[in-house]
Amino acid sequence: MPTQKIPVAILGATGLVGQRLVLRLADHPWFELVGLAASGRSAGRPYAEAVDWKLPGAVPESVADRVVVQADPGAVTAPLVLSALDASVAGEVEEAFAAAGRAVVSNAKNHRMGPDVPLVVPEINADHLALVAAQRARRGGDGFIVTNPNCSTIALVLALAPLHAAAHVRRAVVSTMQASSGAGYPGVPSLDLIDNMIPYIGGEQDKIETEPRKILGRCDGSRVEFAPVTVSAQVHRVPVLDGHMISVNLETEWTLTPDDACALLAAYRGEPQEKRLPSAPEQPIVVDMRKDRPQPRLDRDAGRGMAIVVGQVRPCPVLGLHLEVLGHNTERGAAGGTLLVAELLAGRGLVPGFAAGPGPGPGSGPGPGAGAERAP
Amino acid sequence: MPTQKIPVAILGATGLVGQRLVLRLADHPWFELVGLAASGRSAGRPYAEAVDWKLPGAVPESVADRVVVQADPGAVTAPLVLSALDASVAGEVEEAFAAAGRAVVSNAKNHRMGPDVPLVVPEINADHLALVAAQRARRGGDGFIVTNPNCSTIALVLALAPLHAAAHVRRAVVSTMQASSGAGYPGVPSLDLIDNMIPYIGGEQDKIETEPRKILGRCDGSRVEFAPVTVSAQVHRVPVLDGHMISVNLETEWTLTPDDACALLAAYRGEPQEKRLPSAPEQPIVVDMRKDRPQPRLDRDAGRGMAIVVGQVRPCPVLGLHLEVLGHNTERGAAGGTLLVAELLAGRGLVPGFAAGPGPGPGSGPGPGAGAERAP
Amino acid sequence: MPTQKIPVAILGATGLVGQRLVLRLADHPWFELVGLAASGRSAGRPYAEAVDWKLPGAVPESVADRVVVQADPGAVTAPLVLSALDASVAGEVEEAFAAAGRAVVSNAKNHRMGPDVPLVVPEINADHLALVAAQRARRGGDGFIVTNPNCSTIALVLALAPLHAAAHVRRAVVSTMQASSGAGYPGVPSLDLIDNMIPYIGGEQDKIETEPRKILGRCDGSRVEFAPVTVSAQVHRVPVLDGHMISVNLETEWTLTPDDACALLAAYRGEPQEKRLPSAPEQPIVVDMRKDRPQPRLDRDAGRGMAIVVGQVRPCPVLGLHLEVLGHNTERGAAGGTLLVAELLAGRGLVPGFAAGPGPGPGSGPGPGAGAERAP
Amino acid sequence: MPTQKIPVAILGATGLVGQRLVLRLADHPWFELVGLAASGRSAGRPYAEAVDWKLPGAVPESVADRVVVQADPGAVTAPLVLSALDASVAGEVEEAFAAAGRAVVSNAKNHRMGPDVPLVVPEINADHLALVAAQRARRGGDGFIVTNPNCSTIALVLALAPLHAAAHVRRAVVSTMQASSGAGYPGVPSLDLIDNMIPYIGGEQDKIETEPRKILGRCDGSRVEFAPVTVSAQVHRVPVLDGHMISVNLETEWTLTPDDACALLAAYRGEPQEKRLPSAPEQPIVVDMRKDRPQPRLDRDAGRGMAIVVGQVRPCPVLGLHLEVLGHNTERGAAGGTLLVAELLAGRGLVPGFAAGPGPGPGSGPGPGAGAERAP
Repeated sequence: MPTQKIPVAILGATGLVGQRLVLRLADHPWFELVGLAASGRSAGRPYAEAVDWKLPGAVPESVADRVVVQADPGAVTAPLVLSALDASVAGEVEEAFAAAGRAVVSNAKNHRMGPDVPLVVPEINADHLALVAAQRARRGGDGFIVTNPNCSTIALVLALAPLHAAAHVRRAVVSTMQASSGAGYPGVPSLDLIDNMIPYIGGEQDKIETEPRKILGRCDGSRVEFAPVTVSAQVHRVPVLDGHMISVNLETEWTLTPDDACALLAAYRGEPQEKRLPSAPEQPIVVDMRKDRPQPRLDRDAGRGMAIVVGQVRPCPVLGLHLEVLGHNTERGAAGGTLLVAELLAGRGLVPGFAAGPGPGPGSGPGPGAGAERAP
Repeated sequence: MPTQKIPVAILGATGLVGQRLVLRLADHPWFELVGLAASGRSAGRPYAEAVDWKLPGAVPESVADRVVVQADPGAVTAPLVLSALDASVAGEVEEAFAAAGRAVVSNAKNHRMGPDVPLVVPEINADHLALVAAQRARRGGDGFIVTNPNCSTIALVLALAPLHAAAHVRRAVVSTMQASSGAGYPGVPSLDLIDNMIPYIGGEQDKIETEPRKILGRCDGSRVEFAPVTVSAQVHRVPVLDGHMISVNLETEWTLTPDDACALLAAYRGEPQEKRLPSAPEQPIVVDMRKDRPQPRLDRDAGRGMAIVVGQVRPCPVLGLHLEVLGHNTERGAAGGTLLVAELLAGRGLVPGFAAGPGPGPGSGPGPGAGAERAP
Repeated sequence: MPTQKIPVAILGATGLVGQRLVLRLADHPWFELVGLAASGRSAGRPYAEAVDWKLPGAVPESVADRVVVQADPGAVTAPLVLSALDASVAGEVEEAFAAAGRAVVSNAKNHRMGPDVPLVVPEINADHLALVAAQRARRGGDGFIVTNPNCSTIALVLALAPLHAAAHVRRAVVSTMQASSGAGYPGVPSLDLIDNMIPYIGGEQDKIETEPRKILGRCDGSRVEFAPVTVSAQVHRVPVLDGHMISVNLETEWTLTPDDACALLAAYRGEPQEKRLPSAPEQPIVVDMRKDRPQPRLDRDAGRGMAIVVGQVRPCPVLGLHLEVLGHNTERGAAGGTLLVAELLAGRGLVPGFAAGPGPGPGSGPGPGAGAERAP
Repeated sequence: MPTQKIPVAILGATGLVGQRLVLRLADHPWFELVGLAASGRSAGRPYAEAVDWKLPGAVPESVADRVVVQADPGAVTAPLVLSALDASVAGEVEEAFAAAGRAVVSNAKNHRMGPDVPLVVPEINADHLALVAAQRARRGGDGFIVTNPNCSTIALVLALAPLHAAAHVRRAVVSTMQASSGAGYPGVPSLDLIDNMIPYIGGEQDKIETEPRKILGRCDGSRVEFAPVTVSAQVHRVPVLDGHMISVNLETEWTLTPDDACALLAAYRGEPQEKRLPSAPEQPIVVDMRKDRPQPRLDRDAGRGMAIVVGQVRPCPVLGLHLEVLGHNTERGAAGGTLLVAELLAGRGLVPGFAAGPGPGPGSGPGPGAGAERAP
């Protein structure tokens, strides 16, 4: 039933995250990829020419010949836009789309800390979407912006959420070992990562220390009260393609044994699982207690890149509990995470013009608004 | 004055650490390399044939033709032996050398925690050598064993020592990113480190959590009272050749600002610097506050591999202070560290038969016992 | 129709190639994996415990609990065995299986040059299977050995075959850049491949220079007349996980333009494609003339790892023609190649007790001997 | 005697090659580094600030505070300039310096094929400097440009030269495996070289096929007659920091056995060795016939990065002889090679205003004009 699919556009379609979004949308059960937008130089050229395709295999045939358009609301008609734009331009462009009545799901940092902008990990704080109403009221239209967190934040906060819910995480010391792809392409020069690593990524530590407090915070419908969780982060760039590793030592208000923690992590589920959103992993947190896991190359594709893998769960003599967390930074941490937020919006009927329908029952593919009365 | 040099032998001379010891002893002002010993298969063959030389350049000509002997006291005559043996054999072999009246400096883990065995970082706890007398008394001879700590421990504890002396380190959360060479050769398979890293090194975490407590402890001449420092460590193996990175978050009893910490670290000196031991770096701790330092490839050779480099010094909102520490794991952390302990022994006249004497003559620094009054 | 599937066993099931065979056989339309055999230490333990699983994801559930048996015909009942044994043991073990009446497809080098042993790349020289009859006659039973070539040879000879058929390849200068996985696990130490490469792989150059002459040779039913093709090979090990790159300069008897060559390569098909063998790629040779292709990471999975990718086709001023060839060394070059040979045997009814049936028509899965009268 | 040193400036002092030149000139016996020039953004800032220093250790103190100037003859007074400029600007800037009467030694490609521009490997074709007179005549002044070849060309042609002199090289098939540093900084993105390699470097193959013909050619004082050597090159970029590997198969007019070749290579010397130029390696070609050599990391520093290492010398069944050649691409292949050409000029008294004089005194080698009678 293609007529029922929601038209979607990608802003920043030629970058690394954009490329992964193209792959994920090439055969999506709810969404139809109708627009590929990018910054100046690419616009006007067929996608296969404009893109420097960096994923295995070829550009999907369905989009190879599609002409890339300018990333502005006049050139892009879709009611739902996924933004993989660079932060240097994302701020204004996304604002323009929201002003033009579109639902914007952004992977960029620009609007994440906006008071009425939801910063969402769908399993954790889908209820923060209550801010959409406030944002619409402020803008006076149907458009709005929802944001996907930083790639390291997502993996970290997914691991923290079930422990926080059960025992109140108070403090966490975090050391990340982040993959090269997190910097996009061309990104990190090879001369910096052959026989080397770098203890610095501009702005990253601040995001990891701040964003979890918003995501784990309480939303009263108009604003978010940040959670009283103190995070101390040191980041590192390592010679790995994909997959961010995070060593986490944490303190909880109530005692948690490693066994408790493992059980909570493995059992964790949220709205994406309940509603069976198309990109949702069955199990968002895989616990792997083999002595040498998780490892980026072997574990990053868990749940098609949408599950995090947690291991090395044991007592920490300083703070109480240690975990090692691995998340696929360009899937769950970027393209897949952004798409999952979009599916969450669709499932709740928040895409302008597309009410939430009965949803995709077992084995079905018709989409979130099947049978919906589409209004103009 | 070659007659004044102290004859030295290397046990485990064909391994990676043994090779670095060979290089460091090829032209040493105090020591003369007289014995190359190894385990079964290598004995009886010329060194250049027995060794699978893995360092740049060729085997030094001075040792190329020397025949490797069995690692037992009957075949090795030197009064001072440096052991780079594998832990699987080091325990008994080193014991036999000590029983035979030799001064043994060991890089192996086996005897590190022995109650009367000094575990020494020369800048920090040269006074623990008081245990030598106790050990000699127990053995009834001149022989003894002194140990060099784990490669990560050395870098970590060097950074902790000046802060501990000034403000009492109480707790530390430590995340290491360790180089491949730490596992020796063949060591870690390339399949495990291409596009990958591993959050596990057998036994390593325990060493890092335990050894600093002994090194920073108080020695009363017969035993060591461990320092009340709690360390929580998570280790990782990363695709780097040499140079262990350690992210350290720590809590001190008395407050330390980052500026205080930097000043203490940069000013730190010890007996190796005072006595101008040949392998001692002028400045054992280099503070580099550039935003993206330290980095293994660029900084591991500081002080000819004998200095650690500390950066990323800043407040930690959880524990108080954060540091990033880099140490060359096979130099300061192994071969160079072992040699520096040997020089410390020589400087104190602890090598059997070699009082701290006038030293090896002009242009060579003060010598192992410059100014000493001791007779043999 | 599971009863019609041919029972298959893997010898050397715990190695890297064995692991890939397990994955490929976990859901195979013609074969049923009934036996996992390995050398001494693994036998008697469940597969999931015995194996050091090195592929992404977990051990397939269908084999996780299966007990590994000894690699001898008494413990393994399958009529078809795929051998991924190490060359140090493969020779005798495979011989024993053949003597016991089994069809053996070997990935090991031991029997490749046997006069009545087919060395097969299914697209190129399926007709060499005529040797099976000669071999059976010699052995006096139904058993026999067929071999899969060296991993570099397969990629090279697939690229040479269509050009040889059209224009007679006379001489070729070959420089390989081979992936780490080609040496198995643990294989090449990481210390040898970080910031480094090695111009040596024991025995490899001889295989690459010799095997193509047999594969491209003429078979008269009792022996193979080698093709008069002279290959000069220099091999290199490079820091890549999977995918062997081969730079080929070649001379043909009749002139070939680059365009001719590309057309011949892209159009090449063989019995696997005609018979639609389950593991056969639709197009065994993908020609990619983008200026910077092929690349191992981006192209090795072409045709699910079973197609080679050829680029950089241009005139060579010295020999006439240059090609750059990439093949997945552990798929087409080992596990997948071995399986394809097994499928070729099954398709021709050469598995003892399993006549060739009508074959798997469009969309079907019943297997090569569907409807066959199975004899004991 | 600092007054006797020749003042030298570096154009492009902030790039990777410029950095290596700075190190090599920090304590040079003949030259005094007086000028650091770079393109627009760097000019006016102290060198330590302007440079993104990528070599181990710190910026040499002697240049750290020196202000970088614009790369034009008005701002740079030295009579001898070493150009490490990018090819996008090198052409015009170098021309301007030559027009202003300076001796320019360029590492850029722009002027290499100019009919009266020497393309020099000092051991091979120092006699091509006869073109300087022709060039001066054309320009009407003392200025001129001499060029250093491509980094792969230098290593290749050094290996070819002694064989060519003895037996006339006619044809060579060449496959390179080039280090990341060859592309400068930032150069090749890490995403392209983790678990990957690339069979393409823009313009490189043409240089390798053309430049050796000029270098090995005959110079009659006004032009160079190219040598009749046909080279066919395929290049590859591999995940190595420094050190280009080159697999060479070659055909000579007169037969050469591997033993002949090894003897010729090892015995090769030229004017740099005869005149003991400061940067000249004692032995420009090291022959290492161990089975797994040369290797980039272990062998690139031979002769302080100025010697090439040749191994894998054996008969090639197609062309006659095979060699594996390794050269340090940013030392002998760039910074060191450029400097050696400059020393050659100084030794011949070709720097404007500096006759080949008595040289810089005791302990420093014979000096640029030891024993020369020439007046300015």
